Amino acid sequence: MSTDAGNSDIVVMKFGGTSVAGPEQIKRAAGRIVAAREAGRRVIAVLSARGKTTDDLVAQALEISERPDSREMDMLLSTGERISCALCAMAIHDMGHKAISLTGSQAGIVTDSSHTRAKIIDVRADRIEQTLGEDRIVLVAGFQGVSTESRDVTTLGRGGSDTTAVALAAALGATVCEIYTDVAGVFSADPRIVPNARKLPMVSYEEMLEMSASGAKVLQLRSVEYARNHGVRVHCRSSFEDGPGTLVVSEQETEQENMEQPFVTAVTHSDGEARVTLNGVRDEPGVAGRIFTALADAGVNVDVIIQNEPLGDEKLADLSFTVDRSDLATAAETVSGLDVSRGVRTDERIGKVSIVGAGMRSHPGVAARVFEVLGAEGINIEMISTSPIKISCVISADRVPDAVKALHQAFELGADAVRPEDPTGADHRPTVRG
Amino acid sequence: MSTDAGNSDIVVMKFGGTSVAGPEQIKRAAGRIVAAREAGRRVIAVLSARGKTTDDLVAQALEISERPDSREMDMLLSTGERISCALCAMAIHDMGHKAISLTGSQAGIVTDSSHTRAKIIDVRADRIEQTLGEDRIVLVAGFQGVSTESRDVTTLGRGGSDTTAVALAAALGATVCEIYTDVAGVFSADPRIVPNARKLPMVSYEEMLEMSASGAKVLQLRSVEYARNHGVRVHCRSSFEDGPGTLVVSEQETEQENMEQPFVTAVTHSDGEARVTLNGVRDEPGVAGRIFTALADAGVNVDVIIQNEPLGDEKLADLSFTVDRSDLATAAETVSGLDVSRGVRTDERIGKVSIVGAGMRSHPGVAARVFEVLGAEGINIEMISTSPIKISCVISADRVPDAVKALHQAFELGADAVRPEDPTGADHRPTVRG
Repeated sequence: MSTDAGNSDIVVMKFGGTSVAGPEQIKRAAGRIVAAREAGRRVIAVLSARGKTTDDLVAQALEISERPDSREMDMLLSTGERISCALCAMAIHDMGHKAISLTGSQAGIVTDSSHTRAKIIDVRADRIEQTLGEDRIVLVAGFQGVSTESRDVTTLGRGGSDTTAVALAAALGATVCEIYTDVAGVFSADPRIVPNARKLPMVSYEEMLEMSASGAKVLQLRSVEYARNHGVRVHCRSSFEDGPGTLVVSEQETEQENMEQPFVTAVTHSDGEARVTLNGVRDEPGVAGRIFTALADAGVNVDVIIQNEPLGDEKLADLSFTVDRSDLATAAETVSGLDVSRGVRTDERIGKVSIVGAGMRSHPGVAARVFEVLGAEGINIEMISTSPIKISCVISADRVPDAVKALHQAFELGADAVRPEDPTGADHRPTVRG
Repeated sequence: MSTDAGNSDIVVMKFGGTSVAGPEQIKRAAGRIVAAREAGRRVIAVLSARGKTTDDLVAQALEISERPDSREMDMLLSTGERISCALCAMAIHDMGHKAISLTGSQAGIVTDSSHTRAKIIDVRADRIEQTLGEDRIVLVAGFQGVSTESRDVTTLGRGGSDTTAVALAAALGATVCEIYTDVAGVFSADPRIVPNARKLPMVSYEEMLEMSASGAKVLQLRSVEYARNHGVRVHCRSSFEDGPGTLVVSEQETEQENMEQPFVTAVTHSDGEARVTLNGVRDEPGVAGRIFTALADAGVNVDVIIQNEPLGDEKLADLSFTVDRSDLATAAETVSGLDVSRGVRTDERIGKVSIVGAGMRSHPGVAARVFEVLGAEGINIEMISTSPIKISCVISADRVPDAVKALHQAFELGADAVRPEDPTGADHRPTVRG
């Protein structure tokens, strides 16, 4: 992967599905692209499929087959982004600029052969560089690549266009990777639950990783990892309004910006989880390994895991874990087939609330405060998972909004919460969207 | 272009838009493909875009731009056939067979760079041959290729999937190229106008060329030329019923089959024409050349041309020509801009009726009989154009159905017209669909 740090005038702009949904949105995106070009920058724009296109294509496949072949699924789904790019190129031409749309393959996005969830293994940006050199705007179909072995069309999984954009920004040494969506940035909590949630001017890669993993939908998790690993500055902003959004950058940079690091940056939540409990698991070496290897082989991502103290003469334990609700059937089927427990129970009515903040590292009392706040609200914590900069609590799904509001209030994350050291209330403290 | 005549078990099957319109149609096409494979043949299937997909994509482009860039139009339109192929491959997998869908580029369809009307200049069938060797069914997205210079996606123009199929049949030495549509074959006239029109068991390339050029829609003109030039046997048949359709083969083969060649094979018609008349054109060398060069440069295909005797001291003539109605505005604008005449008139109310038949070569009285029949019906012939095996008459659009019926009756082309030399009435005389 070539990294040409000299291309300091290159910008990558990524537009999501709602930002290219109809002709007016496509023309607005084209206008932003042209404005960047007219400001003297060389522009690569990565586009997602229009609005509901991908859902429509999936529905067409399910009309044909209950379990569509994954290679053919990729051939099918990759058409959506190509349509967006071709249409946007037409709009740019009408504005008097030269643009060219490229498929993932033409753009040099080389992946492994894991159809429907391929990983980028190389970016061969020769054609993009040549096209930029011809004074053209380059539009790249997001979410897709070409497999290195069989030269087949691959896709990167839902939200993969973010990763396409970050990977191109890294390969071409772009100044910034701008991610345009229908929200204005990353917020201190989901504004639909917390009306006074604040837009965060800046968050670190590590914080953004934890937020994406714990429910924030503004950036795909893999794209944040990619950005961190390659030092790509990401700017999350609105395609419908002007003004800055949220910069996702290194922790050094956020620390320079915020002399006094706040304990907590944001509250995130997820209500799309489910829990599987294995009752009476024999407490023997290797049992847990077998369980979670089988789940991994079945493609199930496990989130929080707890096991209680083995009880009785037989040393039987209860083991619980959470998964994405769409994986529940597969997960339950997989562990039932292993025959390592006396029974398997499932619970679809669980949710998760998390607080994230790089400042937590130096403030060990945060967890206690979280438990105290939720306890005062009468919210039972069923499972806990922590990292140095995150505390997640699995709770009943119907209490998630209450938990988000209480934590956001308790840690004074709102736009009306004036920081003690900043009596002006100026908005330069980081915060998150859930 | 490699022609391996040894692959005598290869069949190319092409399915048109109505044959893949919905999930049931796609499964039916998959069933036909699988049946051919299970009969021991190696199968390449070429698919068109589903039903109205291409029209929908064109409409999306026109929402964005009045004159969409042609390169981007090709990127856009080429997605339709890929969707059909991916879905059909899924259906074939569910039937227990291995199939793989290929884009025009992956299938090795190399074209020139004339976007939206590219010409195939090479077929590099290595990947198809390799895939057939792995005991897989190959599905190829029709209508598209990749340009040899810039490696961009190109399309072959409306109906181009027929040409894709014939080109692959030629390159791979297929036994036959089967074209599946929603009609049962080529008829002696359009059955919607002439209820007793006969399905023709066999027509020659030359006849089919004249029929396609004069209104028969069952096969794209270019695909017939390609088939003739490469000796590809084409079988036009219905995707909704079994039984043979119409074979398009060399004239030697049709002559062997039909000891007594009929005068006339079919009546075709077109009601999508328009006429442009230039009044008072100066009768000087080079004027006609300027006019028709300008029209060709504007992408207008001219059909019938007549010029009357120059009259008066200034030797001014009237020049008329017919074009496809969709080209009328461009044609009128082009000739008006040349300033070679006193005025330009247009007429959208014209149609064309033609009779086609290889037997006409040895029967010079056919033209006289045509004029006689139309005269008896009170139909005025406005322009005439002939070839050794075709007579076309430009007439008023509203008289086209009457003309087709009268000619079909007069030349005894109907299913109830028993041939004198064949008292059984067995259906082995060639005939056409209009």
